[in-house]
Amino acid sequence: MQPTFPAETFPAHTPAASQVFTTVLAHGPLTRLDVARRAGLSPAAVTKAVRPLIEAGYLVEDADAEARPALGRPANRVRVDGGRALFTGLKVTGDEIIGVLTDLCCRILVARRVPLTGRAPRDVLAVAVDLANELRTEADGFGVPVLGLGIALAGDVDRAEGTVRYSPFLDWHCVPLAGPAGAASGLPVTVDNDVRALTVAEQWFGDGVGLSDFAVVTVGAGIGCGLVVHGRVVSGAHGVAGEIGHVPVDPDGPPCHCGNRGCLEAVAADAAILARVREVTGSDVAGTAEAVALAHRGDEGARAVYARAGEAIGRGIATVANLLGPQRVIISGEGLAAYDLYARQIRDGFAAAAFGSAARCEVRTRPLPFEEWARGAAATAIQSFVGR
Amino acid sequence: MQPTFPAETFPAHTPAASQVFTTVLAHGPLTRLDVARRAGLSPAAVTKAVRPLIEAGYLVEDADAEARPALGRPANRVRVDGGRALFTGLKVTGDEIIGVLTDLCCRILVARRVPLTGRAPRDVLAVAVDLANELRTEADGFGVPVLGLGIALAGDVDRAEGTVRYSPFLDWHCVPLAGPAGAASGLPVTVDNDVRALTVAEQWFGDGVGLSDFAVVTVGAGIGCGLVVHGRVVSGAHGVAGEIGHVPVDPDGPPCHCGNRGCLEAVAADAAILARVREVTGSDVAGTAEAVALAHRGDEGARAVYARAGEAIGRGIATVANLLGPQRVIISGEGLAAYDLYARQIRDGFAAAAFGSAARCEVRTRPLPFEEWARGAAATAIQSFVGR
Repeated sequence: MQPTFPAETFPAHTPAASQVFTTVLAHGPLTRLDVARRAGLSPAAVTKAVRPLIEAGYLVEDADAEARPALGRPANRVRVDGGRALFTGLKVTGDEIIGVLTDLCCRILVARRVPLTGRAPRDVLAVAVDLANELRTEADGFGVPVLGLGIALAGDVDRAEGTVRYSPFLDWHCVPLAGPAGAASGLPVTVDNDVRALTVAEQWFGDGVGLSDFAVVTVGAGIGCGLVVHGRVVSGAHGVAGEIGHVPVDPDGPPCHCGNRGCLEAVAADAAILARVREVTGSDVAGTAEAVALAHRGDEGARAVYARAGEAIGRGIATVANLLGPQRVIISGEGLAAYDLYARQIRDGFAAAAFGSAARCEVRTRPLPFEEWARGAAATAIQSFVGR
Repeated sequence: MQPTFPAETFPAHTPAASQVFTTVLAHGPLTRLDVARRAGLSPAAVTKAVRPLIEAGYLVEDADAEARPALGRPANRVRVDGGRALFTGLKVTGDEIIGVLTDLCCRILVARRVPLTGRAPRDVLAVAVDLANELRTEADGFGVPVLGLGIALAGDVDRAEGTVRYSPFLDWHCVPLAGPAGAASGLPVTVDNDVRALTVAEQWFGDGVGLSDFAVVTVGAGIGCGLVVHGRVVSGAHGVAGEIGHVPVDPDGPPCHCGNRGCLEAVAADAAILARVREVTGSDVAGTAEAVALAHRGDEGARAVYARAGEAIGRGIATVANLLGPQRVIISGEGLAAYDLYARQIRDGFAAAAFGSAARCEVRTRPLPFEEWARGAAATAIQSFVGR
């Protein structure tokens, strides 16, 4: 179920209009000529698409007498009017929901965190709708309507259907979410995989700006991957894509929740590392923070577990590079807290397994708190609104 | 080095014109409205792009009075005039070069095979240019000029530079090929990875027609993969992409030529299978055909080697499906000769390792002789000519 926007609609739903808008959003202010160059459109098509967007107030033109050439079309730059509309984004984890209110430029105006009362769909839905309503009340202070709600969570999510097909950490199977959340909140709702949502935000505003091909790899409770190929986020024909967590790294490795053995996630996700640290140290380590602390204090067994996880992550990233040849891989996620424990092994594993010039791909890290993931959810709502 | 076309140039090098042409090439005859719908362009943009292509004779309009509506723009269908120009394509293997002469619709008019006299760049270049010249002589009989030459071979190929960065089976490192071949043949030359070239042909004329996301996996001397994502063949930011042969399937497996252990290619390529069959049977099996025959006669050891290779191929395909979620995977290559020996294991390996709805991806086989690969090379020359 694609969200519909009955109250207020984007003035032009042609692919060109959407592309012009998102180009200005990510790169603006830009002259029309710059928009044409970046979007691969003719200047005439850009001029045609810009006009209704300015009339409806989504784009504004900077009066800039200096930039006006003696002859030819005016070189005034256009930019998105961030204050024209607001959006809300929610990131659902296993324990809490992180929510943000953003403007049309996806700048965070308000951020909130609320604990979950349970993981059943009805419990999560109730907390999500309450939080969305609270953010909408905050929006009243800005005197601008909220035009959409994005919800992002880990797992196999069918955005087109608005359904969570499978979420391991919530233990959900085929849960329709966009429909009920839309009915309860009165907003058009977009549901997407959380790493894909984060990747949209990185593409528009983060370390992916200006790149046509990059990957975001998130390490922590799960190991996920968002892919941008030919300038667009990969969603997969059937909703699944970017499942780097199930790249095989060791057929004799530990069992994975997916039913296989030795998947990257079964070696390098938080729970796998914790289990293995308990095993090799023989100590009842309480959680990930304690495991990291143990390794930081020099425990050789714990350090070896992180080293092995890093090597596996590096090889998983190399598999992505060998198949897609991205310009850049951005590593993020809660797992960055342990990054010093396996940074070298990630690089070594990547270098060892990258084939030929795939090794030229730049691998960098970028800490992104959950508010940035929630911002990604808001970005998917903006995508739906502008028809991208 | 991108090929240049000094003698005759495509009338419009805008992205829209190229897209209109390739849309008609793959799906035509089409009305302008159908072209607009399929290409995601406005009808006005299509009408504007079609005009010079008709004037230059690359497209022709079918006069079809029946289809003319009482009001509005004529609904005549346009199609590519195959006889308007010719192209040549060469596929280089370790032993021979397969060459084809095609028309502008990439239909094969003439096909030839010539053995290599050596694998050094100068030897391969000499045979390639002789074959290209021979095909050009054949073209004289059609009274239509040859406008481009495509050369496809396995390995890390930088199409933009026209350079073979690394070809394992020719043992080439950083060999400039487009420049010398262009100088010797007098034709604009496009050099590309052979599986990518085959994928272009499959996208335009084969089992990829109408799909926005699919993969071609080739099994045989090497294990390769061509990927189409968002309707375009993936080339990789640095020239490498689709290297499914180096997906890890067994860290304790046999060494691979890339320096790692247990890559898919080190388990399931022809040479790997042959070596393993010799090892487990203790018999001096002469080549792949004999290994297949031995397995067909029921040798348990040989059959187990094929079974293991099939399982590994299935898991490699699942990795592609988990990362990209293609609509379809097409298995081809010389290795299909042994397909009955591992078809079940490929399907089982895929089913076991595909994550969630990625398993919905259709996996099918399609035998494609080397002439089809050479046709793919001709398709890359057509791509260069039309500016795609």
